[in-house]
Amino acid sequence: MSEAVSTLDGWWSLHLLYNVDWTSLRLLEDSEKDQLIGELQSFLERQEEVHKNKEGSYSFYNITGQKADLILWMLRPTVDELNKLELEFNKLGISDFLIPSYSYVSVVEMSSYLAKDSDEDPYENPYIKGRLYPEVPKSKYICFYPMDKKRDLDDNWYMLPIEDRKRLMRDHGMIGRQYAGKVKQFITGSQGLDEYEWAVTLFSDDMLEFKKIIYEMRFDETSARYGVFGDFFVGIHLPAAELPAFFK
Amino acid sequence: MSEAVSTLDGWWSLHLLYNVDWTSLRLLEDSEKDQLIGELQSFLERQEEVHKNKEGSYSFYNITGQKADLILWMLRPTVDELNKLELEFNKLGISDFLIPSYSYVSVVEMSSYLAKDSDEDPYENPYIKGRLYPEVPKSKYICFYPMDKKRDLDDNWYMLPIEDRKRLMRDHGMIGRQYAGKVKQFITGSQGLDEYEWAVTLFSDDMLEFKKIIYEMRFDETSARYGVFGDFFVGIHLPAAELPAFFK
Amino acid sequence: MSEAVSTLDGWWSLHLLYNVDWTSLRLLEDSEKDQLIGELQSFLERQEEVHKNKEGSYSFYNITGQKADLILWMLRPTVDELNKLELEFNKLGISDFLIPSYSYVSVVEMSSYLAKDSDEDPYENPYIKGRLYPEVPKSKYICFYPMDKKRDLDDNWYMLPIEDRKRLMRDHGMIGRQYAGKVKQFITGSQGLDEYEWAVTLFSDDMLEFKKIIYEMRFDETSARYGVFGDFFVGIHLPAAELPAFFK
Amino acid sequence: MSEAVSTLDGWWSLHLLYNVDWTSLRLLEDSEKDQLIGELQSFLERQEEVHKNKEGSYSFYNITGQKADLILWMLRPTVDELNKLELEFNKLGISDFLIPSYSYVSVVEMSSYLAKDSDEDPYENPYIKGRLYPEVPKSKYICFYPMDKKRDLDDNWYMLPIEDRKRLMRDHGMIGRQYAGKVKQFITGSQGLDEYEWAVTLFSDDMLEFKKIIYEMRFDETSARYGVFGDFFVGIHLPAAELPAFFK
Amino acid sequence: MSEAVSTLDGWWSLHLLYNVDWTSLRLLEDSEKDQLIGELQSFLERQEEVHKNKEGSYSFYNITGQKADLILWMLRPTVDELNKLELEFNKLGISDFLIPSYSYVSVVEMSSYLAKDSDEDPYENPYIKGRLYPEVPKSKYICFYPMDKKRDLDDNWYMLPIEDRKRLMRDHGMIGRQYAGKVKQFITGSQGLDEYEWAVTLFSDDMLEFKKIIYEMRFDETSARYGVFGDFFVGIHLPAAELPAFFK
Repeated sequence: MSEAVSTLDGWWSLHLLYNVDWTSLRLLEDSEKDQLIGELQSFLERQEEVHKNKEGSYSFYNITGQKADLILWMLRPTVDELNKLELEFNKLGISDFLIPSYSYVSVVEMSSYLAKDSDEDPYENPYIKGRLYPEVPKSKYICFYPMDKKRDLDDNWYMLPIEDRKRLMRDHGMIGRQYAGKVKQFITGSQGLDEYEWAVTLFSDDMLEFKKIIYEMRFDETSARYGVFGDFFVGIHLPAAELPAFFK
Repeated sequence: MSEAVSTLDGWWSLHLLYNVDWTSLRLLEDSEKDQLIGELQSFLERQEEVHKNKEGSYSFYNITGQKADLILWMLRPTVDELNKLELEFNKLGISDFLIPSYSYVSVVEMSSYLAKDSDEDPYENPYIKGRLYPEVPKSKYICFYPMDKKRDLDDNWYMLPIEDRKRLMRDHGMIGRQYAGKVKQFITGSQGLDEYEWAVTLFSDDMLEFKKIIYEMRFDETSARYGVFGDFFVGIHLPAAELPAFFK
Repeated sequence: MSEAVSTLDGWWSLHLLYNVDWTSLRLLEDSEKDQLIGELQSFLERQEEVHKNKEGSYSFYNITGQKADLILWMLRPTVDELNKLELEFNKLGISDFLIPSYSYVSVVEMSSYLAKDSDEDPYENPYIKGRLYPEVPKSKYICFYPMDKKRDLDDNWYMLPIEDRKRLMRDHGMIGRQYAGKVKQFITGSQGLDEYEWAVTLFSDDMLEFKKIIYEMRFDETSARYGVFGDFFVGIHLPAAELPAFFK
Repeated sequence: MSEAVSTLDGWWSLHLLYNVDWTSLRLLEDSEKDQLIGELQSFLERQEEVHKNKEGSYSFYNITGQKADLILWMLRPTVDELNKLELEFNKLGISDFLIPSYSYVSVVEMSSYLAKDSDEDPYENPYIKGRLYPEVPKSKYICFYPMDKKRDLDDNWYMLPIEDRKRLMRDHGMIGRQYAGKVKQFITGSQGLDEYEWAVTLFSDDMLEFKKIIYEMRFDETSARYGVFGDFFVGIHLPAAELPAFFK
Repeated sequence: MSEAVSTLDGWWSLHLLYNVDWTSLRLLEDSEKDQLIGELQSFLERQEEVHKNKEGSYSFYNITGQKADLILWMLRPTVDELNKLELEFNKLGISDFLIPSYSYVSVVEMSSYLAKDSDEDPYENPYIKGRLYPEVPKSKYICFYPMDKKRDLDDNWYMLPIEDRKRLMRDHGMIGRQYAGKVKQFITGSQGLDEYEWAVTLFSDDMLEFKKIIYEMRFDETSARYGVFGDFFVGIHLPAAELPAFFK
């Protein structure tokens, strides 16, 4: 048995991705569309309110390409709230014109590979609190992807001694640090919760930075030997005020 | 040929997962919806009756994310009863608004890796009977996933000597024991019955415990080298009384 | 080049699996349903006639779970007859309410791994004839699954010397023999005909026996190292007389 | 870098497979069906004309099982002609009742593994011309499948020295030769053109021969270690004159 | 950690593939079709305008086979423009008759494996600028496929020393050079942006050249050991002027 490293867990996370059914939407009168859009805008304003009160956070982006058109990412203290928000979203009028394309259940996670020994309660540490209960930025671009650590014969992350995993994670983190200020990264864990083991959600004002960081990390042993990646979804910030232009 | 360990088999198990077709459902009048919901509530009350009489058991939860909206888990002494219940469920009016998303046929199973030698008939042992014919709890949260043991070149569970498998299962069980009181675990076997070799159904009043137990176990050799996992479905208890609020 | 073992080939085999479109079916008047059901019953009676005349055989079962609702298995001397029967089935009125879920084309097969040397024409041997042109039983339960033998680096069945394959098949067959009287097994070969290399169709009056035999065999090297399994479909015998209760 | 063996390339090839939408088709009046069928018959007659003039060739078969109902295979000197024919087929009235199930773009190919050294222009050799611009037979049965050569760690066809590939192909071809007169085989290459590296299309008047040749070849190292097979589609010749009986 | 080689990144790239819904399209009056076609032609004219002004580029081809009917490839300085163009395309009337089949987000990329040391700013080098901001040709044929470099145990591109990768890429490039004048190749990188790591888009006036270059390269170690290929899509140039003939 290899030694597990404990994790710190923060807010619950729900990614919801949808395709727009443009063909059906086109059949609506403009006044009908206005009503649906207004309803969705109110929903997003309520998210913004919660975000401002630091009782949760959210993102709403327009995905590029055919895999999805919209991504709604919501963070809350409990999975119950997220579940209720999903139900509420499903009951918005606009949902009749949205086709679910992918979703992800996870929880904000910090692994303690890099933790220093300390008597302090990490949940009281302001830096850690900022990471576990994050204010999601409204950067221009989003990148979302799920991932696993590989368990395949000689390439088995979970069979590595803890020292090796610590060293690998340290090297991996060093690449990440070079992108500080350019890419904001949110790691949510989903072991026992969804299809992969983690989801990664990146934000940047330059979409090329997503490519650069992922490319550079791929040569790092942590990714090169042990990274298993799901599909990548990238998109552009869609402010509530631009919804009429988007849907009409 | 590696030595197989015999299993004890209890109640038959059927997991049924559905997505709600909200768009069609919205077209119904409230009185029509009331009728469908009442019918479904009666169905669930009959399940509750059987559960109370210890002639079977069941669960009904609201799945979070887009993979499914509802999971109905039913346990009965025979597969014939489950088959009849599935047919009955398919004929409920609400089923016109439910889209099948996944299902699983299995049977409650205890492997005897940890059994002590004894002349006793295990099916008369009260502890074992409680495990084979379980009263499924109404915990706040459910987690359901199917799994295999790997058979891949050097990582082949079924080619291991029985002593190695016993030792690995003992270690594995020790992790599980640390979650006693926090997570209730039900193992159902499905070799020859469905897509994977087992299904695992977990219950807890704290969804984070699902993540913790699965995460910790993944570093244990049984999971790390030999575990192959299907998709994970998590959800929140949906009492019959809350169905009107859920569907409307 | 490894030595191939010749096979004896009997009747052609076609498995057809369907889901019922309950939502559309519910829209029919009872009298319309009666007509569709009567038509399907006639079709099944014609199968029964052929079965009694030993000019072929068939099965009709209700699959448990969402992967399919019905399985129709037909055996005939030529693939032309099966093709005609499939076309005939597609033109039954009930087919408008059946959604194809899976199908399998194969031919009853006996491999000669266990054959004794003999000058006898095996196709004249009464035991072999009974195996190649089988009367399919109307047991309570069915289990159907396709399978391959693995060809993966060091685990390559087709690169083994014939002596090793003979020994492995002998051991494998010995497990099967312990289930004589409990499980009836039909092997149909599909190399060059369908997705996998074989289909296995099991019958029993106790569904638990399917789990037991598959579980025990999985520890045998033939399955453990070389078995690749498709999905498993299990179901309950659905006599023509019970069709009205089933569909209404 | 391993030495590539050059190929000779002949006619372009397009396999089109369709399922019939029987439910919609049943809604048509007989006279409407007659018109659609007549149109399709004319299309097939034009193919026959081209075939007789040796300006191309074609096949039209009824696939057994649910994966498809029809396969149309067309061969022409240019991909432009095939593209035009596909568009023409899509615009036939019957196409409203056909659901695309699979297609394949490739080009008739002879590899020169077995070529003798010679100054002769192979494209002038009558035997080779007959192979590259083939008259497709109207045998009773068809078998179509795509395939790759494996590139997996130690089982990597493309890393083998050319002498080894030559020897393996010679052995492989020797099995094929035993089926001369029983099975006609057409190899079309699709590297850079479609999902797999080759498509194989077999014809025979005895469908069992497909199983026999594929089964025997699977024990040959070329298939055993290096063969990766897609799905297999088998079917029965469907002459234009039988279309009314087929569709009605 | 293996040394990453830096990349030069040019225009953003969006591949959009669609199937035509011929059945619905046939229901339109000719005048309605004319309007949809005219609208699409205007869209393509605007692309041509941008192409002529060297502010971007594009391609529009008719895919052969059932995987798609149309491919629209657009290149622009920013992903924002591509996103806007996708939304604009989705709102064209013709989109009601187009079913998304595949899409790809990437960015034109040159890796510096073959770069000479120099103080020069590569983005000012005219040759490099021509590669990063390319004028896409209107060749007769297109070939599009996504690909990865393998990371599988001993076949792990990303764990190779940089010298080995340089040597392999040099050999690989030498094959490509033999096709100069016959095949034009565009490499776009998609690490962190889409499903695979790269997309390759080839153009030629002879579709057989696609097969030849891919076939020859497959024996080269870079492809043979490290290439992982997605599906291949090939098609024929579809000038705006031919749209009426195509759709009617």
